[in-house]
Formats: sequence, structure tokens, C-alpha cells
Amino acid sequence: MIPHLTTALSGPLLDLEKRILSSMPDIEHWFRTQWLDHGSPFYASVDLRNSGFKLAPVDTNLFPAGFNNLNPEFQSLSVQAAMVAIEKICPEAHRLLIIPENHTRNTYYLQNVLALSSLLKAAGLEVRIGSISPDITEPTTLPALEGHTLLLEPVVREGNRIKLKNPELGDFDSCAILLNNDLSGGMPDILQNLEQDLIPPLHAGWHARRKTNHFAAYNQVVADFAAMLQIDDWLLNPYFESCEGIDFSDRTGEECLAKKVELLLNKIQTKYDEYGITQTPYVIIKANAGTYGMGIMSVKSADEVRGLNRKKRNKMSTIKEGQQVTEVIIQEGVYTFESINDAVAEPVVYMMDHFVIGGFYRVHTNRDSNENLNAPGAHFVPLAFEKPCTLPDCADAPDTMPNRFYAYGVVARLALLAATIELEQTDPMHE
Amino acid sequence: MIPHLTTALSGPLLDLEKRILSSMPDIEHWFRTQWLDHGSPFYASVDLRNSGFKLAPVDTNLFPAGFNNLNPEFQSLSVQAAMVAIEKICPEAHRLLIIPENHTRNTYYLQNVLALSSLLKAAGLEVRIGSISPDITEPTTLPALEGHTLLLEPVVREGNRIKLKNPELGDFDSCAILLNNDLSGGMPDILQNLEQDLIPPLHAGWHARRKTNHFAAYNQVVADFAAMLQIDDWLLNPYFESCEGIDFSDRTGEECLAKKVELLLNKIQTKYDEYGITQTPYVIIKANAGTYGMGIMSVKSADEVRGLNRKKRNKMSTIKEGQQVTEVIIQEGVYTFESINDAVAEPVVYMMDHFVIGGFYRVHTNRDSNENLNAPGAHFVPLAFEKPCTLPDCADAPDTMPNRFYAYGVVARLALLAATIELEQTDPMHE
Repeated sequence: MIPHLTTALSGPLLDLEKRILSSMPDIEHWFRTQWLDHGSPFYASVDLRNSGFKLAPVDTNLFPAGFNNLNPEFQSLSVQAAMVAIEKICPEAHRLLIIPENHTRNTYYLQNVLALSSLLKAAGLEVRIGSISPDITEPTTLPALEGHTLLLEPVVREGNRIKLKNPELGDFDSCAILLNNDLSGGMPDILQNLEQDLIPPLHAGWHARRKTNHFAAYNQVVADFAAMLQIDDWLLNPYFESCEGIDFSDRTGEECLAKKVELLLNKIQTKYDEYGITQTPYVIIKANAGTYGMGIMSVKSADEVRGLNRKKRNKMSTIKEGQQVTEVIIQEGVYTFESINDAVAEPVVYMMDHFVIGGFYRVHTNRDSNENLNAPGAHFVPLAFEKPCTLPDCADAPDTMPNRFYAYGVVARLALLAATIELEQTDPMHE
Repeated sequence: MIPHLTTALSGPLLDLEKRILSSMPDIEHWFRTQWLDHGSPFYASVDLRNSGFKLAPVDTNLFPAGFNNLNPEFQSLSVQAAMVAIEKICPEAHRLLIIPENHTRNTYYLQNVLALSSLLKAAGLEVRIGSISPDITEPTTLPALEGHTLLLEPVVREGNRIKLKNPELGDFDSCAILLNNDLSGGMPDILQNLEQDLIPPLHAGWHARRKTNHFAAYNQVVADFAAMLQIDDWLLNPYFESCEGIDFSDRTGEECLAKKVELLLNKIQTKYDEYGITQTPYVIIKANAGTYGMGIMSVKSADEVRGLNRKKRNKMSTIKEGQQVTEVIIQEGVYTFESINDAVAEPVVYMMDHFVIGGFYRVHTNRDSNENLNAPGAHFVPLAFEKPCTLPDCADAPDTMPNRFYAYGVVARLALLAATIELEQTDPMHE
């Protein structure tokens, strides 16, 4: 049973959130016109940080896990949004093949696949799970949480299609394939040149994606949005810089890193001075093609990246699936102002098509407010949002509580729009 | 506070409902392909009757009231569906003018307008209520339920637009207008030849609409659906006939009525014999252009319509807004098998765009199972569905309760699809 959370923040709404709430009709109209020009990804999750003065996305996941952490009371909202997404992307589909990550020993992750599969079944599809892991050579039933199990079947390639072959259950040939595998380890041959619809497209995988492309697109999006709202876009946007040609093992690129860190810290300090913020600026250094909380460090001065010891360099040089880090993004750190029983809490917002379907808090008792919460060993406690993000305060209904999650839903949708534009700009068919 | 209802029927699922549940992926796929060809109405409600052996729509309302009777816990589902509907029909709209019914003394109805307005505001529109009632000549605050009030402002025509003029609140010129007024009294001049988007279109009003057109379209829809499911379409479809040129006051058309009643009763009896049903067939006679539960009678033999006494003839001859009845539909009566504490219960399902957003039971203690529950004086108790209609039993989640409301949602959507086709076929622009 997922614990319900009244709200991490029970204090008064902050100025920025109030501004967002009061501009709600303009914001929704703005989003509607944006979605007329841009098709949304099928699904996504966005990690947010709320520092009180600033509310910003720090990561946008196009292969979201964690569907098991959403509030089950709002499953109907997810199902309805999934119906919209299916109607837009593959209305003719009867069947959907989900391709999960290869790490099949993670029961939390398998529970996510189960939750995702259930909601797509409830949206009216026949769903089976096809693994591209070399470990899965025959239909394999794996334990998820709470006594649930998940059947993984090996994916078989035939011509330009992938299928499941199963004498017991029957074969499975779907016209649409949903990737829940972020392709960190590269683009597998078995997925190349398929005639079936791949959702999201292959170039959304981390073998091709760059955080800097995402945040460059976010710069565009948030500049327009902030102009419409007449606010400083920095309040929604973390500064960032990047360095290429890095090799942590032999300290190549260290000076670039130090310079960019210094540049960024100075820019942040200028903004902190402007707003009278007394905290110490910090930046987060992350693999530009990375995910999964690996290859990440938090620094407060340029000196911290000079002369890193071997242990830290090793930690930074390799990410998921053993990929070497050669490019990094250096991103303004946003303190998290939210806590639950003294534990730092980071909201994660989930979307299907362009609809916010819920979210949860990552809560971790052993981390500081300037540390990344999505890290290996960060065994966070997921706390589902008690309310959906779609119902802000309404003047007509005085007994409706103001809903701070609305602002989270808005910023998450800005990041989603940025991801859409990023995928348009990086589409190999587009060039 | 709306009472929550566990389920009117706590007994086992009936064969037809089981069949619908088990065919869920095929059904959803079928609907998806239908909606590719047909745009859905903005909103609708459908009255259903469930006799145990038969589940059928008996009325489809394109100007639904009763939004206040839906379960407030699922408001987010309505808001999301409203967002989809707005994106399809008027994505550029900032503002929406709702035109309600003229009967402004009905606090239940005004509470409905308030609920509808709240949900459209939550979907991101600026909403105001513009009355076309001759009684509303200046901004008027009327009492709804539970201390709530509703501001009605008189609609003003300027050229080919209608607007609100209000020195205090500012003027209101919207590019979209939502009718919650079924135009039973005829098409008002003020609404003709507008350049603004009228939702639904004028020809959906009861001044133009005919139940027989609707059920003729339903015949088509349900024939396709039943063929796909390989079931007898009668299980979802009430037989009907019609008579024109009726004048109840001087008994014109009485013989047509008697003949059609007899014909229909015989057809029903044949089906009852086929299925071993021992109940007595009955039919419902209703004004073909009528609504609002007026001009309705339930009969079990042709003799009952011969030599009606003056009181009954008067009751049948006039409907809402004083309109004379000249055409009737004679529809197979469907016994209601559902009851709550010995009171007859009739489910009403609500949709926005083509999404089922909830429903409630009309429960009336003083009516028999073959009587119409939507009648003047039928002060029904609304009991909101506890669960949405979108989450049927799912093999993967053994702790999800089978959800009988899914079948209701399916049949309501069949009626919605029929309404869509009906409006296409009766569109004056189409001719």
C-alpha cells in the first residue's frame, strides 16, 4: 500500500506559486496553443526542485519508471490520458508490446512495469512484456512486489518486425511497441529499422539524447512562458553550461569544468543578490547523456573539481551500462525547500500525452537539501501526491483547498514541451 | 454532500455484462476506430435501464444537467476530459459563455450550472453565465444549493455576436458559447446566424431534434457493435416505432398509436419467449421532440391507448415550454432490475468528448420498475457512482474489484456515437 501524503508543504503558498495559480486561465490557453503546434511524447516524468523562491525541472525522463508510486485512487485519470495518447499515436493498435529495462532483478522496477501494463490494459489494449535482455531466453516469470509476478518473454526479430513466440500463450505481433528502456547502453540492433511504431522514437534514448539539448529547448519554452506571465524566467529555469571532451580518468577537461563551474556560481550569486537570497550557490555536474543518478556530483566552488581523488573520478567517469562519460552538463543547483519529517523531498510529476496524471515525492532521510535524490543507494520512500495536479483553487467553490500541485503540473508541462521541441530538433528524419 | 453508493447491484455480474467485460480490448479498439471517423459531441448524458437480461439507453441528452450529482472525488477526470473537448472544439478560446435553461427558480438546476462552470474553469477557461430568459434583464445573483449563488447576466446581441455587458465586472465577448439550454421552446432569434462557435450546434436542440432519428442511428451503431461481439443486438437495443400527425386533444392518430403499440408488444413477446422471460412486455410512449419527462406514458396493451380520458390526453398533449405533441415515439419498455432499499434505480452516465466521466443513480421510492423516473414530481435521490466507469477488472491486479459500471459506460458510449451520427445526418449544412 502506497502511503498517502497530505502535502509535503503545509505552509502558505509562495509568491511564485500564487502567481501561477492566479494566471491559470492564461496558462492553460497558452498550453493549448502550444500543443496545437507540437505533438506531445506518449509519456514522461519530470523531477522538480522547489526552493521556495524558485521552482524548476532538473531532469525529464522519456522512459518513466515509478508508475507503481502513483496514487491508485487516480488510476482512472491515467487510463483516460492513456486513451488520449493511444488515440493520437496508434489508434488502430489492438496490441502493445512493452520493452522494459534489462535489469530484471529490481522488484520495484518490475512493479512499475506491472503498473504501466495494467493501466494500458485498462485503456483497452492487449499488452505483453517483451524483453531484449540476453538473460531472457524463454518466457520467464519474475517476482515483483507484494506477491505479484511479471511474465517476461524474449523478443524475436522476423524481417522488419519484432514479435513474441510462445506456444503456450500464442504468438504476439503488435503494431505498436512502447519502450520503457532508456537505451543507455546504445541502440540495440534488434530495434533498428522496424516497420512497427516505436514509442517514443529511438532518438529519445540516452544513446542519442543530451541533457544540454533538452535544457536549451527549455530555455526557449520558458522564455516565452515567462514573457506571457511577465516574470523573470530564472525563477523557473536553472542556469546551465556544458563541457565536452572530458576524461575523468586522466583529468582531461578539468580546467573547462572549473571555469564553467566558476562562471555559473557567479551568475547564480548575482541572482541571489538581486533577490536577497542568503544561501550559498551550488552546481550539479552530471553526465550529459546520463541518467539513473549515476555520474553526478554537487559542488560549491571551482576548486572542488580540481584535483579530484581517484575514487571521485571513478565515480564520475562511468554511468549506467558501463558507458564512459565524455560530456557533462553543469547545472545550477536548486535547494529543495520541501521536507517531510526532516527528510528532504523532491517532487516527481508524471504525464501521459500532455496531461498531468499524478506524481509522488522522493523522500530520503540521509541526504542534504543540495544533493541529488535519484542516486544509486538512494532508497527513497515514494509518497504519492494525495490530489491530482489539475484542480487549483476555484473562486466558485470556496471549500476547495488551494492546490499547490497545480504549479508543479505547470512546470512539469513546460519541461514536457521542451522535450517535445528537443525531439523535433534532434529527429534524424528532420535533418 | 452527495451520498456515496457502493453499488446499486451487489449481486453477481450478469451474462451480458460479463461478455462486455471480457471483450474489453476489442470494444475499446472498436470505439477508437469509430471516433477516428466521427467527432464526438462536447458533452452528453445517457439514461440507461438494466433489466438483467438487457441493458439499453432510453434517452440521450445533449444538454446534460446534473453535473452536481457526480462524485466530486472524480472531478479531475471531468476536468481532463473537458480539456480534451476544448482542445478539439475551440482550442483558441480564452473565454466561454454558458447559456443555461430559462427556469431559474430550480436550485438543483442552478447547482448543476455552478458545477459545470467550475469544471470548465478548472479546465482553464474564463467562464460566465449568460441568460436568454426574458426575466433576466440585469445581472442577477440567484441562490443555488448549500449557500452557493450563481450570477446570471443578460445576453446582448451585437451584430453577429452575443456578449455580456457589465460595467462592474467588465464586458465579456467569448469566441465559444456552450448551450446548456435544450431549446425545447424553439430556436431563439438571438442565437441565429452567430459568428461565434455554438456548442452543441443549434440543430441539437429539441426544436429540431427527434428521438426517432436518434434511435434509428442507434440501430446502425448497435448492429455493428453486436456483430463485432457476436451477440443479439436486441440485448442492447429497445425496439421502437413512431406515429406522426397525432393530436391527443381530438384523438387524431389514436388508431396508429394502438396498432404500433400492438405490433411492438408482439415483437417484444416473441423475444421474451425466445429468452424464456416471463415478465409482461410494455412500451413507453413519449413525445418525439420532447424531453424533461413530460408527455410520457407506460402501457401494456393497445387498449390502454384507445379512449384515453381527458386528463391523460391533456397530460400527453403538451410538453416543456408549452409545445404541442404531434409526433410520438413508441419504445420497448425495459424493466429496471436495479433497486436500492426497495426503490427503483436508473443509472445516468455522463460523458465529455467521448470519455465517460461518471454517473449517478436516479432513485425513486414511489415508482414501479416499468415507470419513467425522469418525470415531473419524480423527486429522485441522486446517488453518485462510487467508482468511475473506466476501470473494469484486470487480470493483472487481482485485488481490483470487477467493475460493473464498465458495461454502463460502453452502452452510454454507443448512444453517444449514435448521437454523433444523428447530428451528422441532421446537420442543415450537410444537406
